[in-house]
Amino acid sequence: MTPFVSIIMGSTSDLPVMEKAAQFLNEMEVPFEMNALSAHRTPEEVEKFAKGAAEKGIKVIIAAAGMAAHLPGVIASMTTVPVIGVPINASLDGMDALLAIVQMPPGIPVATVGINGALNAAILALQMIATGDEQARQKLAVYKESLKKKITKANEELAAVSYAYKTN
Amino acid sequence: MTPFVSIIMGSTSDLPVMEKAAQFLNEMEVPFEMNALSAHRTPEEVEKFAKGAAEKGIKVIIAAAGMAAHLPGVIASMTTVPVIGVPINASLDGMDALLAIVQMPPGIPVATVGINGALNAAILALQMIATGDEQARQKLAVYKESLKKKITKANEELAAVSYAYKTN
Amino acid sequence: MTPFVSIIMGSTSDLPVMEKAAQFLNEMEVPFEMNALSAHRTPEEVEKFAKGAAEKGIKVIIAAAGMAAHLPGVIASMTTVPVIGVPINASLDGMDALLAIVQMPPGIPVATVGINGALNAAILALQMIATGDEQARQKLAVYKESLKKKITKANEELAAVSYAYKTN
Amino acid sequence: MTPFVSIIMGSTSDLPVMEKAAQFLNEMEVPFEMNALSAHRTPEEVEKFAKGAAEKGIKVIIAAAGMAAHLPGVIASMTTVPVIGVPINASLDGMDALLAIVQMPPGIPVATVGINGALNAAILALQMIATGDEQARQKLAVYKESLKKKITKANEELAAVSYAYKTN
Amino acid sequence: MTPFVSIIMGSTSDLPVMEKAAQFLNEMEVPFEMNALSAHRTPEEVEKFAKGAAEKGIKVIIAAAGMAAHLPGVIASMTTVPVIGVPINASLDGMDALLAIVQMPPGIPVATVGINGALNAAILALQMIATGDEQARQKLAVYKESLKKKITKANEELAAVSYAYKTN
Amino acid sequence: MTPFVSIIMGSTSDLPVMEKAAQFLNEMEVPFEMNALSAHRTPEEVEKFAKGAAEKGIKVIIAAAGMAAHLPGVIASMTTVPVIGVPINASLDGMDALLAIVQMPPGIPVATVGINGALNAAILALQMIATGDEQARQKLAVYKESLKKKITKANEELAAVSYAYKTN
Amino acid sequence: MTPFVSIIMGSTSDLPVMEKAAQFLNEMEVPFEMNALSAHRTPEEVEKFAKGAAEKGIKVIIAAAGMAAHLPGVIASMTTVPVIGVPINASLDGMDALLAIVQMPPGIPVATVGINGALNAAILALQMIATGDEQARQKLAVYKESLKKKITKANEELAAVSYAYKTN
Amino acid sequence: MTPFVSIIMGSTSDLPVMEKAAQFLNEMEVPFEMNALSAHRTPEEVEKFAKGAAEKGIKVIIAAAGMAAHLPGVIASMTTVPVIGVPINASLDGMDALLAIVQMPPGIPVATVGINGALNAAILALQMIATGDEQARQKLAVYKESLKKKITKANEELAAVSYAYKTN
Repeated sequence: MTPFVSIIMGSTSDLPVMEKAAQFLNEMEVPFEMNALSAHRTPEEVEKFAKGAAEKGIKVIIAAAGMAAHLPGVIASMTTVPVIGVPINASLDGMDALLAIVQMPPGIPVATVGINGALNAAILALQMIATGDEQARQKLAVYKESLKKKITKANEELAAVSYAYKTN
Repeated sequence: MTPFVSIIMGSTSDLPVMEKAAQFLNEMEVPFEMNALSAHRTPEEVEKFAKGAAEKGIKVIIAAAGMAAHLPGVIASMTTVPVIGVPINASLDGMDALLAIVQMPPGIPVATVGINGALNAAILALQMIATGDEQARQKLAVYKESLKKKITKANEELAAVSYAYKTN
Repeated sequence: MTPFVSIIMGSTSDLPVMEKAAQFLNEMEVPFEMNALSAHRTPEEVEKFAKGAAEKGIKVIIAAAGMAAHLPGVIASMTTVPVIGVPINASLDGMDALLAIVQMPPGIPVATVGINGALNAAILALQMIATGDEQARQKLAVYKESLKKKITKANEELAAVSYAYKTN
Repeated sequence: MTPFVSIIMGSTSDLPVMEKAAQFLNEMEVPFEMNALSAHRTPEEVEKFAKGAAEKGIKVIIAAAGMAAHLPGVIASMTTVPVIGVPINASLDGMDALLAIVQMPPGIPVATVGINGALNAAILALQMIATGDEQARQKLAVYKESLKKKITKANEELAAVSYAYKTN
Repeated sequence: MTPFVSIIMGSTSDLPVMEKAAQFLNEMEVPFEMNALSAHRTPEEVEKFAKGAAEKGIKVIIAAAGMAAHLPGVIASMTTVPVIGVPINASLDGMDALLAIVQMPPGIPVATVGINGALNAAILALQMIATGDEQARQKLAVYKESLKKKITKANEELAAVSYAYKTN
Repeated sequence: MTPFVSIIMGSTSDLPVMEKAAQFLNEMEVPFEMNALSAHRTPEEVEKFAKGAAEKGIKVIIAAAGMAAHLPGVIASMTTVPVIGVPINASLDGMDALLAIVQMPPGIPVATVGINGALNAAILALQMIATGDEQARQKLAVYKESLKKKITKANEELAAVSYAYKTN
Repeated sequence: MTPFVSIIMGSTSDLPVMEKAAQFLNEMEVPFEMNALSAHRTPEEVEKFAKGAAEKGIKVIIAAAGMAAHLPGVIASMTTVPVIGVPINASLDGMDALLAIVQMPPGIPVATVGINGALNAAILALQMIATGDEQARQKLAVYKESLKKKITKANEELAAVSYAYKTN
Repeated sequence: MTPFVSIIMGSTSDLPVMEKAAQFLNEMEVPFEMNALSAHRTPEEVEKFAKGAAEKGIKVIIAAAGMAAHLPGVIASMTTVPVIGVPINASLDGMDALLAIVQMPPGIPVATVGINGALNAAILALQMIATGDEQARQKLAVYKESLKKKITKANEELAAVSYAYKTN
């Protein structure tokens, strides 16, 4: 099974955040791999990974990093595969990681999602794949529909809250 | 009983903050409704709600949202009923929600209150209604007077704090 | 002619920003007054104004201030008339004024609009008045419709931009 | 010619920034369209556009917005087509737009690029298309190679700077 | 005993922070009073206090406030007695209170200390009094000397930390 | 003539800001001196100045600095004379200077005014002196009264602005 | 044993952060000393230390400070020995300390590391020493190699995480 | 002549800032080289440079970068030579570059100077070299002495400013 998405993180301390990405891809039956790489501790491994990703069949890379978060940008500099960056909140409420990921110079984009936004990274990965894969688009359509359920349930809970002047 | 105020929130996790708005309206005997809607998960429901609000008799809408908080602005774009936005602190101390609510472009205002400022949103709603409702204004006058009590009580507590060189 | 809206600013240096509020109210044929008051330089005048506003028939107050912007909150503390605060960008990109206006303590709301958002303040004032004034609501409906024209015109301009691979 | 990419902006004042996206797509011979839409001024048009984008053959949407930038998120809520958000610097150095675009709630991602990052948005769009389009990938490989030229040229210029103790 | 310093706070929730000011003044045998006043809840009381402070013999006012912290500035606008502002961390790490206190417009200064800096406010009050009071200056000289003890004690603790390559 | 106030700045580039302090003191007939000192370039001169200030008769020190603004705090560490810090906007809108001046550790306060707030620093200096100098207080009372004139003049200008629906 | 590195902190409350620097130097067998000094409480001791450091054989100084963190800059102003500044998170997430350390004026640099970055300060100290000490460079090479182990271990842990669609 | 310091920048647009570093090294007669390299455009060249720097005799690397400034950290990850990072103000007042450079993860420090702080980077480079080079230290001592001249000159200018109540 060739992985379509590669999830990269700098340390296992990012796993509690990033497992939401893994869970989504698993539910959507999108083959993925998950590895640890560090732009600063293992630059050679990062290079090897990034340069081989396209040939290996990887369609999208999700890279998570905190603080001076260079990993997504460094990977993006070495491949034409789109890279989704997930800023991890490890300091300064995650603002340092957000700016270090999103403010890439002209020529090398990183598709940045919100701070700790692992689930959104995985959905975005599937959306990218769906640009050339009708089956993926259908999965997304089903998923999108399911988002409404949370609101329906919230309304049921709010309906149960009672005040004299509450009219519903 | 026609609701005068509609309180909208994106999820029941906002309820512990927003119930202060409900409690105030209830105490002031202002009929209100409370519903969950999401600018992103249920855009059609938001549209239906916003476009029907005026005809239904809603005079003011209070909309709470966190993060990239679009709900108040999206509702405001579809109605002439005034919308009060409550930025919820869900990340970045609520600064993202504050900016995403208050910095509306020319033409579509949102009346923004402080981060997690649900009580102030409800008071402001009553002030808006009071522009054309003398009874509402009288309720506000009574409420305003009551605010002083908290200070009176604080002074009693401070009077009980004793230091050799404290003169009161 | 009794003014419905009172526009207050701290100095005539705020006039280039605030005249957009005046223009909108004038176009909408909403009687208004415009005065200079300073929470710090003329506190007695502020008090006199705020305490007399309701009786004078003022329905909404728009108060603009920059830096440590106390004027909207100080007025709001002395009246039940709703106060719209306009943060003026006089330092720190207007962030100091925004926080000093919007972060009001529980009990005394200020309806805050965006930095330098004078036009939105005036629209919001009319929306507040419209909660009890059908004629005002109709003016707003007409105005809201007019907002689309700017987009129509933008599309005409974009249609005129020509690229080989641009399809429209 | 069916457009593969749709560039959306809120006003023609964004054109000087966004034309870098148009130029890149044109150079890469990617058919695209360019329109003005406003989440707040023309919500119905936004809805019509977003809901019809997939069927029309649009593979990627690029949406630019400033201030309380709702446009990218609102479009993303109504389509499964991936949306790239470009924060425009219209106030607060673009920080308000960045946060209002990137901090999307779970379920509805927006692929955010840097402030005023129109060129990167277009490159990212092509990278997304390339996940299912070998020809697009080849164009990207050629483009990536060309990025080095700017550095080569910079080195030639720096070589010409002369100091007694400069050794190259 | 006439109080020389008046400590004002908006609520008893500020007392755990502000009691450090009271303790310092007490230790230094500077007569002081401590009261609760709110710029927003009891504007009349604030005015009465501020206008009477000088005649009452108050030499320095210490005013603490959080959020949109108007109290120090409002008091300063109504008296020539110097006002020391203490920003209380009640939201946004205290940054809103700091800006709302320190960024006063030309003409009405507030002597601002750090966030939650109650002790420094009291020391500063004594320094102000000492400009015309030799005895106060001597107390300050003694206090200043005592600050070194904390460092002496810290060095003793650090001396006890042992490492093979630690040379002291 | 013994100077009562010593104005210190790090470079003559601060003079356009700081001359507002000099002008105020001159108008109020408060003898002052004005010198350049740098916490980083001339630490020995700073020490000599700070330690000798009290004996020389200096009652208040005003110290201006930008960037990592250490000058006010370093002076304050070496004297019991109150130090007023003026953050100069030399980078980051002056936010770095503000934080580096106001966030002093417990024990050594700096009375901080707003960014570039030289006039307020001088007024505050006179307020400090006035705690023990009745003549100084009278000057302040006269000055305070004069602040109202600016508002009176602003009102005259606003009265001259004419709109059909402007009622004053 | 002459210390090569001097670790300075303002209080023992900084020790839990700074002991990571001590541990690294100890492991690398670099003689060091560790003392408490305060720019504000013991300015004379700071001066004595800074001016004597070079003669004593100190090659690098590591200075930690929080809030308005003046210690690193003040030491740097009095010695030609390189000073590494460690911003301690004591308020505002450490942003005040970072800016007060890094934004030094032209002429007096402080080599700043990240907030609470004590380990990096010690590594940087060894790197500085290694510019003239081949043995130190070899220690660094060994240490650098060891950084990869953490990633290897992380990959083993991630390999153990199992999902149906996870391919590694 | 072997270069001791290598100045790296991402583009010639950084030259007006970085030439202050070149000028200082030239004046101090420190051999240096100056090249353009981009972490994102020429990652292979960066790797080649970083890995060869030590053998080539480079003692210190100065790397300048703006926006999501990865260059200093990426170089630091591949060498034991100390890297000085200069955040360039290209957006957000340089705050993005500062955080992306200074907030490095444990194990790979970058010695960060202030925003646009090229001169300080060069001084710091010489300080690092001076840890093992007595001649370099003497140059620094002379330079340090020269810093006082600017203050002496400033005092002469301030002495020439004349006010009736200015006493010097």
